[in-house]
Amino acid sequence: MQKSKKSIDSLTVMTNIVLPNETNSLRNLFGGELLARMDRAASISATRHCERRVVTASVNHVSFDQPIPEGGIVVLEAKVSRAFSTSMEVYVDTWLDDPINQRKTHTNTGIYTFVAVDEFNKPVPIPHLEPESEEEVQRFHAALRRKELSLILSGRMKPTDSIELKKLFLGEE
Amino acid sequence: MQKSKKSIDSLTVMTNIVLPNETNSLRNLFGGELLARMDRAASISATRHCERRVVTASVNHVSFDQPIPEGGIVVLEAKVSRAFSTSMEVYVDTWLDDPINQRKTHTNTGIYTFVAVDEFNKPVPIPHLEPESEEEVQRFHAALRRKELSLILSGRMKPTDSIELKKLFLGEE
Amino acid sequence: MQKSKKSIDSLTVMTNIVLPNETNSLRNLFGGELLARMDRAASISATRHCERRVVTASVNHVSFDQPIPEGGIVVLEAKVSRAFSTSMEVYVDTWLDDPINQRKTHTNTGIYTFVAVDEFNKPVPIPHLEPESEEEVQRFHAALRRKELSLILSGRMKPTDSIELKKLFLGEE
Amino acid sequence: MQKSKKSIDSLTVMTNIVLPNETNSLRNLFGGELLARMDRAASISATRHCERRVVTASVNHVSFDQPIPEGGIVVLEAKVSRAFSTSMEVYVDTWLDDPINQRKTHTNTGIYTFVAVDEFNKPVPIPHLEPESEEEVQRFHAALRRKELSLILSGRMKPTDSIELKKLFLGEE
Amino acid sequence: MQKSKKSIDSLTVMTNIVLPNETNSLRNLFGGELLARMDRAASISATRHCERRVVTASVNHVSFDQPIPEGGIVVLEAKVSRAFSTSMEVYVDTWLDDPINQRKTHTNTGIYTFVAVDEFNKPVPIPHLEPESEEEVQRFHAALRRKELSLILSGRMKPTDSIELKKLFLGEE
Amino acid sequence: MQKSKKSIDSLTVMTNIVLPNETNSLRNLFGGELLARMDRAASISATRHCERRVVTASVNHVSFDQPIPEGGIVVLEAKVSRAFSTSMEVYVDTWLDDPINQRKTHTNTGIYTFVAVDEFNKPVPIPHLEPESEEEVQRFHAALRRKELSLILSGRMKPTDSIELKKLFLGEE
Repeated sequence: MQKSKKSIDSLTVMTNIVLPNETNSLRNLFGGELLARMDRAASISATRHCERRVVTASVNHVSFDQPIPEGGIVVLEAKVSRAFSTSMEVYVDTWLDDPINQRKTHTNTGIYTFVAVDEFNKPVPIPHLEPESEEEVQRFHAALRRKELSLILSGRMKPTDSIELKKLFLGEE
Repeated sequence: MQKSKKSIDSLTVMTNIVLPNETNSLRNLFGGELLARMDRAASISATRHCERRVVTASVNHVSFDQPIPEGGIVVLEAKVSRAFSTSMEVYVDTWLDDPINQRKTHTNTGIYTFVAVDEFNKPVPIPHLEPESEEEVQRFHAALRRKELSLILSGRMKPTDSIELKKLFLGEE
Repeated sequence: MQKSKKSIDSLTVMTNIVLPNETNSLRNLFGGELLARMDRAASISATRHCERRVVTASVNHVSFDQPIPEGGIVVLEAKVSRAFSTSMEVYVDTWLDDPINQRKTHTNTGIYTFVAVDEFNKPVPIPHLEPESEEEVQRFHAALRRKELSLILSGRMKPTDSIELKKLFLGEE
Repeated sequence: MQKSKKSIDSLTVMTNIVLPNETNSLRNLFGGELLARMDRAASISATRHCERRVVTASVNHVSFDQPIPEGGIVVLEAKVSRAFSTSMEVYVDTWLDDPINQRKTHTNTGIYTFVAVDEFNKPVPIPHLEPESEEEVQRFHAALRRKELSLILSGRMKPTDSIELKKLFLGEE
Repeated sequence: MQKSKKSIDSLTVMTNIVLPNETNSLRNLFGGELLARMDRAASISATRHCERRVVTASVNHVSFDQPIPEGGIVVLEAKVSRAFSTSMEVYVDTWLDDPINQRKTHTNTGIYTFVAVDEFNKPVPIPHLEPESEEEVQRFHAALRRKELSLILSGRMKPTDSIELKKLFLGEE
Repeated sequence: MQKSKKSIDSLTVMTNIVLPNETNSLRNLFGGELLARMDRAASISATRHCERRVVTASVNHVSFDQPIPEGGIVVLEAKVSRAFSTSMEVYVDTWLDDPINQRKTHTNTGIYTFVAVDEFNKPVPIPHLEPESEEEVQRFHAALRRKELSLILSGRMKPTDSIELKKLFLGEE
């Protein structure tokens, strides 16, 4: 196992068409269906980063900005944004691709956390993630703030003990 | 339309069995499938609160603490936790119910945001939510902190402008 | 295991939305899909009553009075209506819930029979059912007539040996 | 439209394999899934008899005698057993076909009722059914008893007004 | 096991309705869905011929001549067209059946190859196929040409070593 | 619309996990399910090449060399291999990707033909395809042979009128 990996190593592309059964009564992709697709793309991406079996730990945030119509071509791109000791944050960007009108619209971003586990379901150490592009570096830093936030929300960290988040709210950053 | 409603008015119970197709290779309910079910239960709950058509705005947080095995009976209970002017936060508690061994285990909590829309897809005002139980009051207050957080994360509010969150990190609460 | 239980102990609520794939060419819920949902709700209800694994023995009657449109919110409520030595009759009431127009319509009633089985698939004794409400008492008595009818239809009882049914047709009740 | 038709005219054969998703935790075909398949085969059969659009009116009886394992080849054969003025009774026989061991086992019988409707969803007259084989004649006669029973159960006929059923319970047949 | 069998021995009829989820954005049956149904009908047919477990070896050709609309009744008829030592070619004819307008249209032909395997997944010998009707005889002869073609396309036979195909292109037939 | 395009312009990557419902009784991906996925990936690829709506015209050949197990990560890569006046041939390469054991196995090749159509479902002219890599050039030339073959098989060309195929069988190439 390599000591560190790049985001490109875990890039997972999932292109598919929106089927009638995946739509709501407005004939747009159901929020829940998109969440399920994102979870699958993200879990493949996490597996590619750590080369171990992974389990979903949490969904940190998913925004729904643009409806995706039935019959539309949806492209999901998942990449690991930061690796901690045994867990990884994965970003899933979603686009609606319309080759006929030559338009590609960014519709959603999802942020998931996975844990790498061994055959006894125990967490195992994973490679570091070395961000490369500017966006990857930004997401890498934001991932720590989100992790602190998650620990606080679940009562495993006191807000006043956070490093990154405290800075943010005190306006020091 | 009533001016305000209680959480019990939007209570939505979705009981079902985990089918083989909804499981991963460990024969546990796929994270993504649970997210899709939660989204549906939450959207029904939101519709019951506002008596209007709703669309998913965001998933704020979902934790995956306990795996849910194939064949298990899963109970989702969704309730509106706070109403803002045109949007609602909905809590979805998930249990694994095992009547044979008389055990009921809390496995997940999901927090979703929905927006009420009219026939032209424009946001419309909705009734207030009056929390009753202690847990409902707690979730009601936490909802505002989560809303501030969401505005900050999407760049629509400066961290230093937040009221509730700032208090939290400055240790004033 | 308790000696007897009430109908409320086995109450199972299954709320869900009608998806496009579950509809016929008139865009109403397919009869067969409703039968499948009812079977699942009823089997959970039966499991809750007897605290054992159960298998479907027969569908006694299901009526289709009102079509249920795509996108509609369907609420199934299943309750054990009578327990025999190793089998249970389960009633599944179905409603179409329309929170936007504040209407709730009763659309179907299904009556199913389940048998409780042990790990070798052999029938096992189950608790009695004590009906409480007037409707529960009515259904409790009708269940015996249906059981006699089922035995007659399958050739395991002679019509003239029946007690409840004979009374019915001789006009003695 | 012909004035009368034979059972063979509406024969509908639906052969398929039991997929993992259609099974319960014992890896046998879910009762509800079989009910859905039967409903579809029966509705095609009814359409073939009356050459009109049909809707499911009721499930009269379905027995579950033998479990059907995952991967098994299931053969459904649906035929109209009797036509009334605007409704038809359809019989669905189900077999588990095992070509490798050269065994074909009858596993279920389902009895459904459909109504023929016009484009405004109003019931329309349909051709008579002329039974041919001994089994078809038996089912043809039993269909009237079941129809009377259904009218009685739904409160649309008094038990003492029935002709066929009364005979049955008075031991005159 | 019989030494030889007829096409009728492997006849497999799969009648079903096109559900909304199986359609593309033009509301016609998705090509891929039809391919999946054909594969299932063909694999049952192959199992019936050889009375052994079978695996799909290749799809030789499938044509899509007529769209099949949502709600349509689709009839697949699969029959073994030729048996080689351990493999079989299966023909799947597809019709759109419209009983209301009394029309039955041939929409597709699919040609699949299956291999019979034992419990260790090794190919096993199978019965011969004796064609009966004129069409069966034609398909029987064409099957050899297709087999040669398949060997050539996969590089396992030189074009100049073929017997049937060479004749075809040299105009000797 | 560009006059010509490269294969890379139509590259479509579809990564996904094999779910239990998509497997046969050996727990490998069902042949028919793979055919359906290939059809979808290929139709997206064709749409990207011609920037028009497309319909499946035929499946020319699909080989099944390696079983793909449940839970496996499957990667489909579809690219247009040749464009004719209104139709395109699309190649779909399939890999089983195992990041845990660092193995990527080529399991299948599928060759599909699509036709570009306008809003009245009439075929429309499409851009040329300029092959670049050695493999693309090979597939480009083979595509003409396959097209001739398809015309011959459907009776729209006499074998002796073919140019490319005749050469092949006469050993002139």
